[in-house]
Amino acid sequence: MRKSHCYIAGWKVAVGICVLVFLAAAAPPEGPKAAIRRVLDDQAKAWNKGDLEGFMDGYWKSPDLTFSSGKDRTHGWDATMQRYRKRYQSEGREMGKLSFSEIEIETLGPESAFVRGRWKVVNSKETLGGQFTLVFKKFPEGWRIIHDHTSN
Amino acid sequence: MRKSHCYIAGWKVAVGICVLVFLAAAAPPEGPKAAIRRVLDDQAKAWNKGDLEGFMDGYWKSPDLTFSSGKDRTHGWDATMQRYRKRYQSEGREMGKLSFSEIEIETLGPESAFVRGRWKVVNSKETLGGQFTLVFKKFPEGWRIIHDHTSN
Repeated sequence: MRKSHCYIAGWKVAVGICVLVFLAAAAPPEGPKAAIRRVLDDQAKAWNKGDLEGFMDGYWKSPDLTFSSGKDRTHGWDATMQRYRKRYQSEGREMGKLSFSEIEIETLGPESAFVRGRWKVVNSKETLGGQFTLVFKKFPEGWRIIHDHTSN
Repeated sequence: MRKSHCYIAGWKVAVGICVLVFLAAAAPPEGPKAAIRRVLDDQAKAWNKGDLEGFMDGYWKSPDLTFSSGKDRTHGWDATMQRYRKRYQSEGREMGKLSFSEIEIETLGPESAFVRGRWKVVNSKETLGGQFTLVFKKFPEGWRIIHDHTSN
């Protein structure tokens, strides 16, 4: 009897393993919200390592990228990069520690979405922060920010 | 000869009229950019008549409408309406004259788009203004703003 019991238990384990393998293989690919969330998390991680280029990876590398902040509108990935360099890497400036909160991701179609959220940069002298609205588009290389509106 | 000439001219006019009628009938319906531009123009017209309800027609009449300004985030059409009332219709406040400029409309799909632009309100005491980013979605009733990020 004991032998038979063990045999049944072993059979159940085998089926369990098969089910798990099947579920893993059939798992849907990462959805838009998870993919966008990962872009934002990667941006914060890069920033907090002082890697501005890595942070800028989240943006569409195009002259048509736009960045609105206060009364200024910046056109293009290069100009946006320069803006960040000036504000956070020029003399006497610090990148500090960046975090995002109250992130709300809304898909608009299979290849577009927008994100509302708050940002905070804490450096040795002060805490900066405000709200942002990001427009995302899906490219062959992944989801990228095509427009950023930030307010302090 | 004169009669025959007149006959040919009359025939040409008839064909011309037919072509015009055909073109008018085959004209494509108003595209997304023109429809969105019209929503913005209607908003400004309503505002400048002191018609805040008419202005608010441009917004999605939903508790999920969001309005970000500076550090504040307002949820819902009703709360957004209240915010405008307080700022522009309460005691000592004026609606003034609203205008939009530097409007850039980008479609994101057949039923979504975003708009960058600048707003200006001139009243008897001061000139207010700033930038905005609007996210638009197409509903059975037409294109409506589902998210507004305004900075002063």
